[in-house]
Amino acid sequence: MQKKIHYTYEMATTNTATKSSNIQPDWKTILEAHDRIRPRIHQTPVLTSRSIDELAGAQLFFKCENLQKTGSFKIRGATNAIFSLSEEEAQRGVVTHSSGNHAAAVACAAGWRGIRASIVMPRNAPKVKCRAVEWYGGKITFCEPNVTSRAETAARILAATGGVLVHPYDDDRIIAGQSTAAKELMEEVTGLDAVLSPVSGGGLLSGTCLAAKGTSADVRVFGCEPQQADDAYRSLTSGTLQSLESSDTIADGLRASLAPRTFAILRQCVDGILLVSEGEILATMQLVWERMKMVIEPSSAVALAPLLRKSGLAEMGFAEGSNPRLGIILSGGNVELKW
Amino acid sequence: MQKKIHYTYEMATTNTATKSSNIQPDWKTILEAHDRIRPRIHQTPVLTSRSIDELAGAQLFFKCENLQKTGSFKIRGATNAIFSLSEEEAQRGVVTHSSGNHAAAVACAAGWRGIRASIVMPRNAPKVKCRAVEWYGGKITFCEPNVTSRAETAARILAATGGVLVHPYDDDRIIAGQSTAAKELMEEVTGLDAVLSPVSGGGLLSGTCLAAKGTSADVRVFGCEPQQADDAYRSLTSGTLQSLESSDTIADGLRASLAPRTFAILRQCVDGILLVSEGEILATMQLVWERMKMVIEPSSAVALAPLLRKSGLAEMGFAEGSNPRLGIILSGGNVELKW
Repeated sequence: MQKKIHYTYEMATTNTATKSSNIQPDWKTILEAHDRIRPRIHQTPVLTSRSIDELAGAQLFFKCENLQKTGSFKIRGATNAIFSLSEEEAQRGVVTHSSGNHAAAVACAAGWRGIRASIVMPRNAPKVKCRAVEWYGGKITFCEPNVTSRAETAARILAATGGVLVHPYDDDRIIAGQSTAAKELMEEVTGLDAVLSPVSGGGLLSGTCLAAKGTSADVRVFGCEPQQADDAYRSLTSGTLQSLESSDTIADGLRASLAPRTFAILRQCVDGILLVSEGEILATMQLVWERMKMVIEPSSAVALAPLLRKSGLAEMGFAEGSNPRLGIILSGGNVELKW
Repeated sequence: MQKKIHYTYEMATTNTATKSSNIQPDWKTILEAHDRIRPRIHQTPVLTSRSIDELAGAQLFFKCENLQKTGSFKIRGATNAIFSLSEEEAQRGVVTHSSGNHAAAVACAAGWRGIRASIVMPRNAPKVKCRAVEWYGGKITFCEPNVTSRAETAARILAATGGVLVHPYDDDRIIAGQSTAAKELMEEVTGLDAVLSPVSGGGLLSGTCLAAKGTSADVRVFGCEPQQADDAYRSLTSGTLQSLESSDTIADGLRASLAPRTFAILRQCVDGILLVSEGEILATMQLVWERMKMVIEPSSAVALAPLLRKSGLAEMGFAEGSNPRLGIILSGGNVELKW
């Protein structure tokens, strides 16, 4: 049974330039976030590949957040959140829960600010991710690998330390920070017809919508999601927030579910969700490694994968042969290598 | 039995700026080569990694020929050779033998010039390499996987077509072309104390010596070689050209031996050969993939590997804590991915 792979959101409010709308975080907040984090992060390069362009039938512009500090875009939101704290808040330290790139990003940004970062990680988190958190100076507390234990452990640390929670995506400061990747892309590459980003909890995709549509009234934004972790697709088609039972998609960065805040933004702004299979993710990751000589993690591959199938352009409403200009957010490059 | 891993060449003629010496190819030839190929190749980026710098105790500048057209530096020499041909020569087509990056480079450059490229490849060459040659329009003739069959097959094609042989390294046009990688590096990064390059047939290392020492009288140049393919080390220590019995080093680009032409240049110019183990090659390759998010092939890792062992700087004559500025030629990124 082939699942419908393309979700087209009702276009009523879509393509409203969000700069003038009342959505939060607003344009001023995004500009402030960018000014705040610009001295601390990389303006990552935008790369192209003639041979992948030929396969996709499009002009692709890859925003390389795999080359970002800590190896993913997550440092943008974490830096914005942590450097937004008042001196009094900062002194109490920050707390977060994550088994992945957000954990390393919070540890790194907290280190820059010189404050304590307490990270709740599941006992079965990949060793390489734990080492990264420790390398950046984060203090790990392990929990059982389930939502209840994670929430209880984080709550206990918050109570004990009086620290500030830095949620991975249900937070305007995080969303504003993540938006700066697409903002830089839009500023560097003019005339983009659409931007594609992976979606998990929705922080990156929400930010991408706000930045892209705040920059150009004509650009469309698509979220890309594993079929095996399709809560955003289901939430947006049903109109009610759907949760995700545990997922074992290879795209380990995309196993979270939308939060109320990101769901609300995406309902207003996103033009569609494109689902991809596990096989497509793997083949796309291999293609980028081989052709672009860049290490990307599976979550990054999700944002390119729809373009490599025959129906890809049509699913986004582009005519065959129209050769659109498309931005792709390569979200990260942290993958455990074994050979 | 631990083999001595560092060879220091008698310094009598070393560090003579080659610009004023009588070595061929001379500086004028190198400048002409660079002018000839510049419009057709990438000026590849020079990247840095703070975390690898810390491991090496040095300031490292990576010249990323893995991001070069065809995925390796080989396109530099091939383009120079093929665009040096007279119109009459070009019309007869070019012939070469290679199971690797030189084959793809010759096919690609011949395509740019619009002439025929006949490539002799061993029957057991990796399929991915054969596909690359065909993708660039090269015409493959398979031979048995031994030197005799390769030479006979190439001679037969040369006789039949009247084509021009483009040798992978025993050719001044090739050496001049390969030299441009180090020339670009020296022009972009001032004050380098040394440059490290892998060595196989010696085209890249010879060119690196000529370009580096032609640019700066103070820079030293080291070749890096697998212990399992140590003919350059043995040739330079013994003073007579040594051949290499078949090698199965994982650095598949470094299984060739020096030719008389490259041996003569290296005897005059290179400051030392550093040998590395197979384990060092693998660990270094993994480090670059993980930290720099770049796909490099094993041959590229060979040029960084010596710096990651405790004795690395001392082997090159640098004091502990001197934090030298070192250029590393990452020669290519073509590796077969399987997962």
